[in-house]
This record gives sequence, C-alpha cells and structure tokens, in this order.
Amino acid sequence: MIIRELRVTPVAFADPPLLNADGVHQPHVLRAVVELVVADGRGGEVTGLGECAGHAWQLDWLELVGSRLLGTSVYETGALAGLVAELLAGRASDVDYGPDASWRRWADRTDPPESRGPAPVPAPAFDVRRVYAALEVACLDAQGRLAGISVVDLLGGRVRDAVPYSGYLFYKWPGHPGADADEWGAALTPDGVVAQARRMVDRYGFRSLKLKGGVFPPDEEIAALRALRAEFPDHPLRLDPNGVWSLKTALVAADELADLLEYLEDPVAGVEDMAALASRTSLPLATNMCVTSLDDVRTAVERRAVRIVLGDHHIWGGLRAAVALGDVCRAVGWGLSMHSNSHLGISLAAMTHAAAATAALHHACDTHYPWNEADDVVVPGTLSFVDGSVVVPHGAGLGVELDRAAMDRLHDVYLALGREHRNDRAYLRSVPPDFAPRMPRR
Amino acid sequence: MIIRELRVTPVAFADPPLLNADGVHQPHVLRAVVELVVADGRGGEVTGLGECAGHAWQLDWLELVGSRLLGTSVYETGALAGLVAELLAGRASDVDYGPDASWRRWADRTDPPESRGPAPVPAPAFDVRRVYAALEVACLDAQGRLAGISVVDLLGGRVRDAVPYSGYLFYKWPGHPGADADEWGAALTPDGVVAQARRMVDRYGFRSLKLKGGVFPPDEEIAALRALRAEFPDHPLRLDPNGVWSLKTALVAADELADLLEYLEDPVAGVEDMAALASRTSLPLATNMCVTSLDDVRTAVERRAVRIVLGDHHIWGGLRAAVALGDVCRAVGWGLSMHSNSHLGISLAAMTHAAAATAALHHACDTHYPWNEADDVVVPGTLSFVDGSVVVPHGAGLGVELDRAAMDRLHDVYLALGREHRNDRAYLRSVPPDFAPRMPRR
Repeated sequence: MIIRELRVTPVAFADPPLLNADGVHQPHVLRAVVELVVADGRGGEVTGLGECAGHAWQLDWLELVGSRLLGTSVYETGALAGLVAELLAGRASDVDYGPDASWRRWADRTDPPESRGPAPVPAPAFDVRRVYAALEVACLDAQGRLAGISVVDLLGGRVRDAVPYSGYLFYKWPGHPGADADEWGAALTPDGVVAQARRMVDRYGFRSLKLKGGVFPPDEEIAALRALRAEFPDHPLRLDPNGVWSLKTALVAADELADLLEYLEDPVAGVEDMAALASRTSLPLATNMCVTSLDDVRTAVERRAVRIVLGDHHIWGGLRAAVALGDVCRAVGWGLSMHSNSHLGISLAAMTHAAAATAALHHACDTHYPWNEADDVVVPGTLSFVDGSVVVPHGAGLGVELDRAAMDRLHDVYLALGREHRNDRAYLRSVPPDFAPRMPRR
Repeated sequence: MIIRELRVTPVAFADPPLLNADGVHQPHVLRAVVELVVADGRGGEVTGLGECAGHAWQLDWLELVGSRLLGTSVYETGALAGLVAELLAGRASDVDYGPDASWRRWADRTDPPESRGPAPVPAPAFDVRRVYAALEVACLDAQGRLAGISVVDLLGGRVRDAVPYSGYLFYKWPGHPGADADEWGAALTPDGVVAQARRMVDRYGFRSLKLKGGVFPPDEEIAALRALRAEFPDHPLRLDPNGVWSLKTALVAADELADLLEYLEDPVAGVEDMAALASRTSLPLATNMCVTSLDDVRTAVERRAVRIVLGDHHIWGGLRAAVALGDVCRAVGWGLSMHSNSHLGISLAAMTHAAAATAALHHACDTHYPWNEADDVVVPGTLSFVDGSVVVPHGAGLGVELDRAAMDRLHDVYLALGREHRNDRAYLRSVPPDFAPRMPRR
C-alpha cells in the first residue's frame, strides 16, 4: 500500500478552434497524466491514474509533492492534503490571479507566472486543491485496484449506473488559421450552432445542450438559443457567457431568455452582480466562477446569487470533495451540475465516478470530451456515450487503462510544441484581424 | 465481498440516573449490535460491526432491510441507501414524532409507536438515516477489514491522530431509586457538579466540559457553570438545556453566560426562537435539535440561528454523511462539534474515525462513554482516553473487536428486562415525588 513512484507526463492533444470569452482554443490542449505506482503488499504493484491541466508550474508543484510522497501509504489522503498545503504555502508568491481574483481563479488559463506581477493573495488555496485533486484521483484509482472495487464504491456507492452529460456547443472557426476546415466546420451563426448541435445530438444522444457564449454580441447569442429551441423543442438549453456581460446587458438578456433556458451560467462576473441579476429574473442562474470553493458558499447563499453550482473535482479538491459538494448543495438548496475543461479519458472516468456517487446531481454534466476524444490516452472501449450518458466503468479503480503508446505519442507532441501554458487570448491576438470575431460583448 | 448474513443483537447495559430535560436515564440503556457477515472472496469471511439505538421498531426495520441485503456487495452503499429508503417508505405510519417534530425527532427517546396517535409526517427520513447509518458503519468496517485499512482512510484519511472529547456532566441522583449510591454519587448542586467534573477531568483528561441542563431553574444551572469556571479557569464550558427554556429566560441567561461559555447549546426550541436569541446575544449558539439534517441547514443559515452544529453519524445518515457535514459547515461558516447518545465502544470507534477524517471539526466531541464503559461489547484495550482524547484505532476497519461473551451477557440483560423502548419521562414519573427534582425550568 506504499507509494513507490509518482510519474507526471505532460501531453498535448489536438483541439479545434473553439471560441470563448477569453479568446480561442489553441491547436493543442496541454494536460498531464499522473501515474502513482503503489506496492500491493503481495510483491507486485498497481498504478493509479490521475489527470490535470498541463501548465508548467502545476507540473513542478506536482513533482515537488511527489518527491515527498514516496514511502507513504496510498490510503492516507488526509495526510496528503496536509502535505500539499504545507509544500505549496511557501510558493504563494509564484501565483497571481490578477486584479479580479474571483474572475480569474476559476479558469485554467492563467498566464505564465513570470509574465505577471506580485501576488496579491497570500495562500494559493485554489492551486492546493488542484494539485491535491490530481493526486487524490490517482490514490483512489490505486485504492480501488488494490481492493478490486470501483472508485464509485469508494465514494459511497453508485446512485446511478450511467451519468448524463450535456452537449457542449461552441462558436467555432472552420479550422485553425492556416489549416483546412475540420470535420465539425464553422459555427459562427445560429444556423452553424444548430448544425453543430444536430451533429452532437445525433452522434452522442445528448439531451441538455450548452452554448459557450460571451463571444458575440448578446443578441446574436440569444438568436442562436432561439434557433436551438426551434430545432430541439424538448432539449434543456444553457448559455454560458463566462461573466463578460454587464449587469445592464444581462438584465435585458435574461428577460429574453427566461422561457428558453434550463439555466443561465455566469452571465455577469462576481457574486454582487449575480445577486443583483438574480433578484430581478425568474431565470435560474448557475455558476462555476463566483462559487469555486466552500469559502464562497455562504456569501452566495446570503446574497441569493445563484441557484445552481457547477462542481468540478479538479477545482474543488478531488473526488471526495466533489461528492461532498452534493451535500453542501442539498443543504443550501442549490442544484448541482458539473463543469469541465478540456480533458482526457482519465478525467472523464473520474468525473463519471464522482457523478455516479452524487445523489444531489440533478443536471447533466458538462464535458469537452467529444471535441478531443480522437486523441486519448486511455485504451478505447470503456468510455462511450449512449443516449448522452457514460456508463460507469465496471473495472477496478477508475476502470480505465493507460494506453502507454498513445501517451508517449502525445508527450512527443507536447515536447515538439515547446509551449508550457494555455493562453487563448494570446492565440486570438496572433491571428489575422479579419479572422477574429467581433468582441464587444458587454 | 458479498453480504451473507446480518445479525442484530439487542443489548442492555447499566446506566446511572442522569437527569435531563425529559426525565432521568433508566437503569439500563437499550442498544443494538449489528454484525454484517461478508464473504472475503478467498473462501473466508469478515464481520463488519455497527451499533444503533435499541428501540424495538428500529430493530425490526434493520432486520427487514437485512433480509434484502443478502447476496449484495458490501461496497454498494449507494444502492443500500436506496433500499432502506424504499423499504421504510411504506412504514411511515408507524412513526409519530409528536406535535413538535422539530423538538422530538432529534432524540432517541420516542415512546413506543402503539402508544401514539396517527402519524403527521409522511416520510420517515429521520429513521431512514438512522437505519442506514448502522448498516453503513458495518459496511465500512467490513470494507476496511477486507482491504486491511482503517475506516478513517475510507473516509478521506486522518487529519488528526487522536480525537478530543468533552467531559459530559449531568445532574445526577446518587443512585437509582431503591439502589445504593453509585461510585459517582450525587450531583444536584454546583458543588456536586464541580466534584463530578473534577473526577471526569482527573480520570480522563477532558478539556471542554459540557453540562446537560434544562433540569433545574436556570439560575441554579448558571450557578453551576460559575462554580465550574472557578474550579477550571481554562476549560471551555458548555451548557445544553435541550430547548426547554423560554426565549425570555434564555435572553436573561445568555447575558449572564456570555463570558462563561464556549457555546450555549439549544437553549430554546426551534429555529425561530434560536434566531431571535442569536440576534440579541454575542454568545455562540449551538444545536443538535433544530438542525438535524441537510434539509434544516438553509433556513438556519438564512435566519442566522446558530453558529455551531453538533453532528452525529447515527442521525445524519452514516459516517460519510458525518464527514461531509464538515464541508457543509465550512461552506456556511458554522463550527462543527459532535453529539452523543449513550453508546458502546463500536460507536465510540465509529465516532472517532469520522472525527479523525473531518478537518472542519473544531470543537471537542460529546460522548456518554465514561458513564457506560464498564459494560462494553468490544474487547478492552483499544479505546481509551488520554488527555481527553481517543487515539484513532490502528487496526483494520473500525479497529475494535467484538467480545461475544460480553455481548451475550448484555443480550441476556436485555431479555430479562423485557423493556423495548427508552422512556426517561415515564421513569421519572415512576419514582417517589420527593425524589424528583423541581422541574419548572422555563
């Protein structure tokens, strides 16, 4: 049960030019595969898998923690959490989430630390949780493999056998600048969005459909939602402008969207504007930006700022924390959904196990997986969407196996890229001006 | 990993005449030992232990669920929770928590169902949680034994190696009516309470001291607290009148107690009176009566009724729920302590594992164990108080072993008693009038 080795392998996988409020997805996503090698007490070993964002500094921190993990028990995740906090406490000054921490810290897209100013926040609790989460998933995978049971059963047992996901729609260029159009083609108009949704629904069976907004002027995005409603009369719809609307804009938009949406996600930035909007609309507001930790809950409850929170084990501090968030949401009367960044199959499996153990989850989970599944590091066949849901893998641990050749290939892509950070904004600015969408969105 | 058998053994163990707002402890506590026999997949079996209150109808429900458990996996606690809810749903009419459900449902001391009127509440969610909790503890103990790891590690890992408990002080008759004084003697005055506290502190090393109040007029109980403060200048003090004070009385008492207490627990009944009191005192208010489930949290937060909640895995629905309550408390800004009814070593071990995995627990836990430890069903030597704390057992599962001879002996006591329910009030009324304390406490 003793941890023998931690391996962290950065990888890069292909990503289409998906537009968001911050810019556009670069041609490759950076992620990292965590392998935790654990003695099985019978002379052999098992390897627990985890996955996280691939920023260089997060990898450094993971390896720093990893070097101190060797020789400890894979079951002692409480001590591990303490160790991560202790080791990263002294690293606080490396990180700056910028002037509006509540806006920045939700995302994985912070600029490299060297490009930023002095840190305004003393304790990188957000990063502590992210680093711990990757390790906790690997520990739970290893624990499950050691005992021959599923991670969902380590989390309290399954309350559902399959986890519903939403179809995650994006405004999209036909292809990356300088490259041919990809198979999804362009989605820059309501018709384009509907065509993308039709493909998503036909291929994966998704029910809920979420449009990443905050890209075009609100009227255009509302028109896209109306077009989706016309094409899909019974599909729950969501819109996520990522907090870039002004309160004034959001008030007008909320009126127009009131009968159209399952929920409106982060139309404005910050709990105060969210509360102001919530008090003047019947539309349920959701967030993964103004509530990203337990520390944010009380204010949001007292201000009645949101009705749905999108959890994410990467951000909330692991799978147990993600499941416990269900209890928190039940306690304060919030609905629960799940946030996603671009990810591989290890995280899809982890998300699925957590969701399967969370009775309070009443909204389909977000996932970017359909945009990236061609480039995965897990052996195919375990994870697939049937009627919009992923069946909880039945094998021990997470129930997915690492395809080492695929990982090595994606690691080579990472090395060849020579890029160590995500920066959608810089990428958007790098393309010809006539290629970029109109961006005044407030 | 398959459940082969569920055994539920009601037991009765000696209890001193401890006074509370409802009456006085009867000479024996009724509890039940749950044994879950599970195939280990290698031709042998392990037995997981759980413990719960010994009311006849709770035992019936446990056995009803048990009969349906056979052949299922001990890891599938999510399905188990669903099964318990399903089987007990049709039993709702058996239970009546009386006209003030918020007051009654917290306790284990409901009258037998046949003595009560028609049920006002359709769903026995409270009892579903209690029945599930006993089974979940046994499942986790078995899971730990199967994997060779501690229950605390199944709950997220230890964040502390020893769990601090409080010294639980009671007003007390010298002995049960008709019997000699017991070794603790009487505690019916401030001096008597201080002598009891001195004995508790010297023997067990407790720091926090909690007086079960609601027994004598508030002035007398406040005088006892003052006497405790004089004798123990640095020990955190608590008082628990179990909700029997009027708001008017509580307002006066809170002023007098403001600089004396760590917290005042349930001075008044119901969230509205608690909120009214909270708005007019700086004294932290705690509860295990007006917040007993996730469904109670939101109102209590919005009304700012309490600052500390006392969890209890028996009441909140198992050890995982007890640990998740720590996240809930952190989220809404509450402190967390732990409630106790009279219990055996199985529950002390379970409480200790849960508390050891709960980072948010900042107050010493309550336990009745010192009052009952002479009559235990676990093999001695594992559980002991050092400096007021219990070291988390290191063995697999809960880390305690059943002393079958001791259990059989206490089962014989149960059978000889012929009593199937707890009823402190009836017992108080049965004793000579001059023996009873003065009870007008509002």
